[in-house]
Amino acid sequence: MYGWRSRLGLILPSSNTTNEPEFYNHLPDGMSLHTARMRLENANAKALEDMANEVERCTDLLATADVDAIAYGCTTGSLVKGAGYDEEIETRIEDRAGVPAVATAASIKRAFDALNLRSLAIATPYIQDLNEREERFLQEAGYEVVDLQGLELEANSAIGDRTPETTYRQARMLNHGDADGVFISCTNYRTFEIVEQLETDLDKPVVTSNQATLWDALQTVGVEPDLPLGRLFEC
Amino acid sequence: MYGWRSRLGLILPSSNTTNEPEFYNHLPDGMSLHTARMRLENANAKALEDMANEVERCTDLLATADVDAIAYGCTTGSLVKGAGYDEEIETRIEDRAGVPAVATAASIKRAFDALNLRSLAIATPYIQDLNEREERFLQEAGYEVVDLQGLELEANSAIGDRTPETTYRQARMLNHGDADGVFISCTNYRTFEIVEQLETDLDKPVVTSNQATLWDALQTVGVEPDLPLGRLFEC
Amino acid sequence: MYGWRSRLGLILPSSNTTNEPEFYNHLPDGMSLHTARMRLENANAKALEDMANEVERCTDLLATADVDAIAYGCTTGSLVKGAGYDEEIETRIEDRAGVPAVATAASIKRAFDALNLRSLAIATPYIQDLNEREERFLQEAGYEVVDLQGLELEANSAIGDRTPETTYRQARMLNHGDADGVFISCTNYRTFEIVEQLETDLDKPVVTSNQATLWDALQTVGVEPDLPLGRLFEC
Amino acid sequence: MYGWRSRLGLILPSSNTTNEPEFYNHLPDGMSLHTARMRLENANAKALEDMANEVERCTDLLATADVDAIAYGCTTGSLVKGAGYDEEIETRIEDRAGVPAVATAASIKRAFDALNLRSLAIATPYIQDLNEREERFLQEAGYEVVDLQGLELEANSAIGDRTPETTYRQARMLNHGDADGVFISCTNYRTFEIVEQLETDLDKPVVTSNQATLWDALQTVGVEPDLPLGRLFEC
Amino acid sequence: MYGWRSRLGLILPSSNTTNEPEFYNHLPDGMSLHTARMRLENANAKALEDMANEVERCTDLLATADVDAIAYGCTTGSLVKGAGYDEEIETRIEDRAGVPAVATAASIKRAFDALNLRSLAIATPYIQDLNEREERFLQEAGYEVVDLQGLELEANSAIGDRTPETTYRQARMLNHGDADGVFISCTNYRTFEIVEQLETDLDKPVVTSNQATLWDALQTVGVEPDLPLGRLFEC
Amino acid sequence: MYGWRSRLGLILPSSNTTNEPEFYNHLPDGMSLHTARMRLENANAKALEDMANEVERCTDLLATADVDAIAYGCTTGSLVKGAGYDEEIETRIEDRAGVPAVATAASIKRAFDALNLRSLAIATPYIQDLNEREERFLQEAGYEVVDLQGLELEANSAIGDRTPETTYRQARMLNHGDADGVFISCTNYRTFEIVEQLETDLDKPVVTSNQATLWDALQTVGVEPDLPLGRLFEC
Amino acid sequence: MYGWRSRLGLILPSSNTTNEPEFYNHLPDGMSLHTARMRLENANAKALEDMANEVERCTDLLATADVDAIAYGCTTGSLVKGAGYDEEIETRIEDRAGVPAVATAASIKRAFDALNLRSLAIATPYIQDLNEREERFLQEAGYEVVDLQGLELEANSAIGDRTPETTYRQARMLNHGDADGVFISCTNYRTFEIVEQLETDLDKPVVTSNQATLWDALQTVGVEPDLPLGRLFEC
Amino acid sequence: MYGWRSRLGLILPSSNTTNEPEFYNHLPDGMSLHTARMRLENANAKALEDMANEVERCTDLLATADVDAIAYGCTTGSLVKGAGYDEEIETRIEDRAGVPAVATAASIKRAFDALNLRSLAIATPYIQDLNEREERFLQEAGYEVVDLQGLELEANSAIGDRTPETTYRQARMLNHGDADGVFISCTNYRTFEIVEQLETDLDKPVVTSNQATLWDALQTVGVEPDLPLGRLFEC
Repeated sequence: MYGWRSRLGLILPSSNTTNEPEFYNHLPDGMSLHTARMRLENANAKALEDMANEVERCTDLLATADVDAIAYGCTTGSLVKGAGYDEEIETRIEDRAGVPAVATAASIKRAFDALNLRSLAIATPYIQDLNEREERFLQEAGYEVVDLQGLELEANSAIGDRTPETTYRQARMLNHGDADGVFISCTNYRTFEIVEQLETDLDKPVVTSNQATLWDALQTVGVEPDLPLGRLFEC
Repeated sequence: MYGWRSRLGLILPSSNTTNEPEFYNHLPDGMSLHTARMRLENANAKALEDMANEVERCTDLLATADVDAIAYGCTTGSLVKGAGYDEEIETRIEDRAGVPAVATAASIKRAFDALNLRSLAIATPYIQDLNEREERFLQEAGYEVVDLQGLELEANSAIGDRTPETTYRQARMLNHGDADGVFISCTNYRTFEIVEQLETDLDKPVVTSNQATLWDALQTVGVEPDLPLGRLFEC
Repeated sequence: MYGWRSRLGLILPSSNTTNEPEFYNHLPDGMSLHTARMRLENANAKALEDMANEVERCTDLLATADVDAIAYGCTTGSLVKGAGYDEEIETRIEDRAGVPAVATAASIKRAFDALNLRSLAIATPYIQDLNEREERFLQEAGYEVVDLQGLELEANSAIGDRTPETTYRQARMLNHGDADGVFISCTNYRTFEIVEQLETDLDKPVVTSNQATLWDALQTVGVEPDLPLGRLFEC
Repeated sequence: MYGWRSRLGLILPSSNTTNEPEFYNHLPDGMSLHTARMRLENANAKALEDMANEVERCTDLLATADVDAIAYGCTTGSLVKGAGYDEEIETRIEDRAGVPAVATAASIKRAFDALNLRSLAIATPYIQDLNEREERFLQEAGYEVVDLQGLELEANSAIGDRTPETTYRQARMLNHGDADGVFISCTNYRTFEIVEQLETDLDKPVVTSNQATLWDALQTVGVEPDLPLGRLFEC
Repeated sequence: MYGWRSRLGLILPSSNTTNEPEFYNHLPDGMSLHTARMRLENANAKALEDMANEVERCTDLLATADVDAIAYGCTTGSLVKGAGYDEEIETRIEDRAGVPAVATAASIKRAFDALNLRSLAIATPYIQDLNEREERFLQEAGYEVVDLQGLELEANSAIGDRTPETTYRQARMLNHGDADGVFISCTNYRTFEIVEQLETDLDKPVVTSNQATLWDALQTVGVEPDLPLGRLFEC
Repeated sequence: MYGWRSRLGLILPSSNTTNEPEFYNHLPDGMSLHTARMRLENANAKALEDMANEVERCTDLLATADVDAIAYGCTTGSLVKGAGYDEEIETRIEDRAGVPAVATAASIKRAFDALNLRSLAIATPYIQDLNEREERFLQEAGYEVVDLQGLELEANSAIGDRTPETTYRQARMLNHGDADGVFISCTNYRTFEIVEQLETDLDKPVVTSNQATLWDALQTVGVEPDLPLGRLFEC
Repeated sequence: MYGWRSRLGLILPSSNTTNEPEFYNHLPDGMSLHTARMRLENANAKALEDMANEVERCTDLLATADVDAIAYGCTTGSLVKGAGYDEEIETRIEDRAGVPAVATAASIKRAFDALNLRSLAIATPYIQDLNEREERFLQEAGYEVVDLQGLELEANSAIGDRTPETTYRQARMLNHGDADGVFISCTNYRTFEIVEQLETDLDKPVVTSNQATLWDALQTVGVEPDLPLGRLFEC
Repeated sequence: MYGWRSRLGLILPSSNTTNEPEFYNHLPDGMSLHTARMRLENANAKALEDMANEVERCTDLLATADVDAIAYGCTTGSLVKGAGYDEEIETRIEDRAGVPAVATAASIKRAFDALNLRSLAIATPYIQDLNEREERFLQEAGYEVVDLQGLELEANSAIGDRTPETTYRQARMLNHGDADGVFISCTNYRTFEIVEQLETDLDKPVVTSNQATLWDALQTVGVEPDLPLGRLFEC
């Protein structure tokens, strides 16, 4: 059987082309990944709110695959309605499937806390409205946002078409002098190839949406390998 | 971007836990895989027929990920209604997504022809009714079925819990003296680890549902690597 | 000559198909393994007691191969008659062959002590009667049994047909919250592939029958390599 | 389960310390080896004849391990009573266990024929009487013995204490100008490390007792890998 | 000394950031590369014509490094003035330095001829005017241009910022059904990572500016290694 | 794009054949190197002073390649006019290109300070006059020169023709008993293959012109890998 | 040139077949070994004393090869005349060649002191008379000999014909309970393959003739690599 | 024992520092090399003739090491007295030691014949007189000398101080247009690192003194591995 050590379910926006490969390429020995999709084309508040209507259907699909935990892989999709929305998503999945769930917006806060980061410089691919919602969400959760820059991309497919080099260069250009760490937002924005180089070159912890979600999900199922994805995995 | 060489979409039964890992572990460099699920718990004719109602919804989801082709990963699900049903499934997906599609029941016939196999010994995990439907489907397509043995498993999750060693031993025990080749049916039944050992030990070509579907999908997008999955990939 | 560093003799139940491969795959450079078999088909008390009549004959056979030590590879077979039976088996072999001997039921106690484990959660493939005898044997030796779960398999060949994945999942489901460590019993039950992953995921020491017997035998002949078989080998 | 591809049983003289390691180090993926011993200390005709009384007991032991075939690993032990004795041993095992069996003295003849060797130069570790019996056995089977040299060792443990370098040098010193090939006799005499170098340096096929027995046993169970043990495995 | 086997000089547009790394990463053992730059910011006819005034100065610089040959690494820069301009550039360098020289526009024709390609589908990053000049240049040299698509980039730095994935996808989209082969133009446009995958997926020879120039330069100095850069290096 | 992590420009004497290969062979992942040449044939004071007239032209060329920093790779060329000349060169480049610059004569002082070296034994390939200028330059900067030996080579091409073995043996023969460390001067004199062996065998830090310049340039762009180039890279 | 880092000369008995291969297989990068032979067939006092007459001739031969140091590779040959003879040999070579020299009998004492060993258990291949001379030599130098066992071999070629397995087993059988360490004597007796396993299994430092001589010679030329030859090389 | 497959003795000029390392680095598995030296400082006719007086003494030394063959490693030393001198040297060694011998000047002729070379371009490090003797020797043996260039080095230590890069460049500069192959003379002149690159770049067979002598010696002892030393080893 695949997934004898643990099976992970993943619910993600249909147009996301990054989350599945990033998770698969770093899955610990003995784990398997199984995906269900929610329809989304554009990364804006209205579309993200509509998308959440599919959470229950996707949860039911994954439950038939006997998954041991479910990750909800979307950053803005789990914070778009503000404080508390992330835990609400987690609860809806857990109640339905009877297994633990993590949602990206909650996972990144757990990652910040594990690394003891209070202030952050943030790189995103988002449009202005989503950037503001993310900043407010983090501030209400008690974190200071030192700098936040976005690429102004609304089509989610355009985000997935970027290369990790783009992400590296955007993160290098942030004004992060005062920040405890750097956060790169969006599960469709590639970071796994460059997170360790960024940490070396910036000499600061770097948290990214997919890295934090994977770390949180692995914690949940009690599988804790040494992944080459930055300091978070040494916590 | 992931999938710069080609992006493959996969539509599969929700309880299938084998197809995604087998495809991911052998994906050619530069390709990515994106999944959508149709609800299915038991492998019987009624459930398989119902499942097909979700083809269009799944196709729409994958279309937003800009996939270059779509595979319908279910053997009995694409032959349960008899001759012609496999091509019908392919056509419904192609018409909707505007990209080429392959369905397992059609892919295995293309594989048999590529290897020039006219008679087959067949191992399946299925219950008797599905075995009979599969045999009839192949006979009507002009192939001779020399032997066919099933494990009598109806719960799809039970099929996915088997190990490749089980598959190897079942295939060794077939009466295949007169057959041109061996076929191992079901995209939820593990074969990728043992297909080449089986070919060596039986000294015959071995076709399996996932192997044939992957091979067919790669042909469709024009990416043709040397995968260590048996003689079919040398065609 | 094979075994220039040390030759290890192994006496085991005839139906055991796991002990030889697990030992061979981890034998230190310069060591060799030589086997003699005692007839056993079912793992129950009566059969195990009868089996012991062959100890002397097997010892004599191995003595002609100039072995430097002898391992008696059977857990319940060296505890079935209760406290003291394990050392009795060791003495019978040593007196006959003139070289040191270890018996699994004694080796696991040495392993618990080396790791400083006083309370244990235990997974076995055994029937209820053998589970109770093992629990009593360990309690009389001063260890606390926090939980003990068995697979209820009596045919020894059925135990050897299990995969390490089965063992992993059984051990994960134990109630081990209060235990100092986990013990997986039976030299015919596969554990070598997953003992280190279990220790990582449970964050506790894991002792298994074959691991403890091999460790004890290597101590006896003064060959002490770094084997990737868990914390016991770091003692 | 170990041995999912095939399980091989091995019956060998108790003082043999070479056969188990040579087989284990070259066992194909998915196969396992299980041993039973017959008492033997000295390599002479009387002792070898007595040893054969244990064939049935050993066969019964291995049968409980569900082996798929049994090898009788002793050259002179399967020819000491002259022509036909080798097939007699095979038949006794097969009748008892219900699985195919091979005996070394028969396996080497199958190897000579596969390589098309009619005349042989022979190196053995044996005393004169056994050398003569072996020569007669092969002549009666229709092979020409061009040269035959023995080390005059009677204690079987002394044979097992030799290194492969000894074997190489003995084989190089044979008068093999006219021979089709070279045969190195005795399953306790090490050859696996040097069989390919010998073939390169002598520019002739080299058959050895363990190599031929393993090759024959693998043919029997239909597992045919590429082992680096000389030209015989290319047949 | 570096370059004991051969030293290669390279003259290239100052804004080219691709040619040096592509050559360095594939330089045969014992060769070294030494660069001189001609000022160029935009890839248009006027700027390319002006740039050529620096050929002699760059040649003189490289001559002091005792190079064994000089490559002029610019496609449009060696064809912008039409038929014959490529050989004129080569002659100016050779006369000045006393060593052989190759210019990209001449090298690609030698590559086409070595591969026996008469008709080509062409991908470039250029603006329309340069595309037309290149098409005319090749037609006058006797080649048929089946299709030609450009990215319309004028800033040379923008060309160098593209990834090989971009190049792969552009080349896949050409209408190359009737063409003998595919040509990817521009020494600042990355191709070395994907030239072999393109040849596999298109099943046609692929020539690129840097690949052809390096191949031609290596021919000139008589160093002919097996580089993994497509069929041209098997000529 | 090449150089997504950082692009390094290099200005060097035209006859230097060592600096480019030494830098390229040790460039961190994600960096690229781009070169511009200043005319120089002989390593004497007059020629080195003239050469500096080309600094601005070379800077302009590299600026069009969007480099993130520029290294001026010449030791005596950046100290020939005495104290302060090294910083003057750096300032001229920085003012012109708008990016940070390092010059070898300044980089070696930064390296000495990072390693806390106050007294040095020095090996050079230079003629007497340049040796004296270098000694004076270092003394005025506050370092003690314990020993200084030169090879008396004036033709720069002759320096580049030496092998690292020559450098090793010259450095071993210095009288360095009292020195804190050893300095090997000249960016055209090969040291990268032997710097770590020298440090091991002398048991002292070793600084070399190319090693210090590369280290300083990497500091400047904030890319700090573990290069196997001696203790300086552990600072 | 070979030996650019250092050239080592070796003077050894003509019948020694072990010293050259053991040194060559562990020579640090950049070193070379050059040999001269003194006639010796039997390892007895008379022959060893005569052999020493050739020291000067051998020294002269090696001097023409520009060696940087000379090792006299013979244990009993440098102690056969008692206390002080080892240093006398070293002085004779140094005076003649003008480079440092080491003799095995002096090197082993330096090794004992580096490891702080005062009492030793000793394994040799020698006859009784040489064993007594060695014991006396070491006692007079202040070391305690806890046990000393010899193989009683007089023909030096017979010593060289032994395998490292023989050495290992002889050393394991010493009575070394009270000894600080183990010494294996004779430069013709193989130890390099087993010195680290012996140290692990005995849990004591092991010094051997060739290991100590090589270590001492490397110290002399100031080349100090990490060789996998036991704790001595960590000193 | 070292050299269980074969032991090779080597007689060479005392100042030769290349022959031992080149042979050792390419010695087939199971072979060992043992050296004896004849005094020689300068490579001129008088010194080479005197040197030959030591052949018998060196032969006797190597005979005590039980070598299986002896190589006389000196090109001009085995041809200085003209036609027939090479075979005379071989005969003197064979008569004395009772094992086969090869001398370089004879080995190269055997190599030319094996490769079917009748005309040669020759690179040597020698002075004019030795070059003329070599040319005459080869002409009298029936070979045509198309070109012959020497480095005019008389001190043998100076020859050994050259690097393989020097040899490569000298061989490239020969006028070898009409020659069947290239010959690089002198066992003290390094060629093993570059012989295959030379053959690739010149597209002709290359024979060198050490390569031919090693090949010839291996033929003699019947050990014939695939060494990466050019086309001669494919004969």
